[in-house]
Amino acid sequence: MTELAGPKQDRSRATRRRLLETTIRCLATHGWEVSTVGFIAGEAGISRGAVQHHFRTREALILAALEHMFEERAALLDALPEPAQDGPERVHAVVRGLVEAIIGGDLFRAALQVWTVAAADPALRLAVLPLERRFARGVHRRAVRLLGADDSDPSVRALIQATLDMARGLALADVLTDDSRRRARVVRAWSGQLAAALSAA
Amino acid sequence: MTELAGPKQDRSRATRRRLLETTIRCLATHGWEVSTVGFIAGEAGISRGAVQHHFRTREALILAALEHMFEERAALLDALPEPAQDGPERVHAVVRGLVEAIIGGDLFRAALQVWTVAAADPALRLAVLPLERRFARGVHRRAVRLLGADDSDPSVRALIQATLDMARGLALADVLTDDSRRRARVVRAWSGQLAAALSAA
Repeated sequence: MTELAGPKQDRSRATRRRLLETTIRCLATHGWEVSTVGFIAGEAGISRGAVQHHFRTREALILAALEHMFEERAALLDALPEPAQDGPERVHAVVRGLVEAIIGGDLFRAALQVWTVAAADPALRLAVLPLERRFARGVHRRAVRLLGADDSDPSVRALIQATLDMARGLALADVLTDDSRRRARVVRAWSGQLAAALSAA
Repeated sequence: MTELAGPKQDRSRATRRRLLETTIRCLATHGWEVSTVGFIAGEAGISRGAVQHHFRTREALILAALEHMFEERAALLDALPEPAQDGPERVHAVVRGLVEAIIGGDLFRAALQVWTVAAADPALRLAVLPLERRFARGVHRRAVRLLGADDSDPSVRALIQATLDMARGLALADVLTDDSRRRARVVRAWSGQLAAALSAA
């Protein structure tokens, strides 16, 4: 890289980032059908041709956007502070943090649009699955670390998976309506059981 | 009703039922975009005009189909046998039965198509919400009965809700891939916790 290439590359990286973030926002706000390459390009203030230079199909653009958001979300989970408390309060803080990280922002809503279309589209499903698995494994690993749990115990492992399945169910419930009050009660009750199981294990 | 009206009404009811079931199957298999009134009518072997005589819009047809399937699913839950076992094995059998009833068949996949479009369509969201709430309350009531739980205890209530949120999360995971082996482990682990909580309450 020459010295002159620096700023140009920065600009290109910033454009790419804006495009990927706009893609996620369009999917979450307007849904799959509306989020064509042309629409997303318009929203991002980038020419359609420039978008197609980087991503030849809508699927390629959307998968790159999901991957980008997954990485951002993983970084957000890595930045969550070590919980100050111990015991049940620590478990509650961690579960609440994980649930809100999964639900917050546009990622879940955008991913839901992609999963739903992929459910009836085998080619898209094949492309989404490895991405989704990598993300799920990353979230699980981070949950284990934050909980200070022993993941080699199969029942602990299954309970942490159950916690993340519950989090996804809560995220789905929040798509149609603001479910935050009910969710707070559910997360507290669940965390109490998880804390008891982890301290017994 | 005259005696002669009987068979005609039966035929009309059977046609309506076939139309609603075809609607759910089309949504689950082909997704929202493909499932237009014309496509569904063709799959059901009913003329488009006849469909539009009963349902003026695609939304009206789809909402009626969801409602029909919700009622069928509720009847299926009512028909689940009282678990023969007691204690933790009973809880495990009930949770497994609920999870599989939520995941099985086309209902969840069809509902997911509708929720996802509703997420980016406020008018559809308003129409879906009361239906969805009624169904969720019905499933909750049946879960309480099958578990023989005391729903007036707020923490029991929240744990049963958490169980149904987990079931929805598991259903979502099963949309992209056959998740049945992992799900069996998750359901067993959580059922153990739920059983302990219910017997302590």
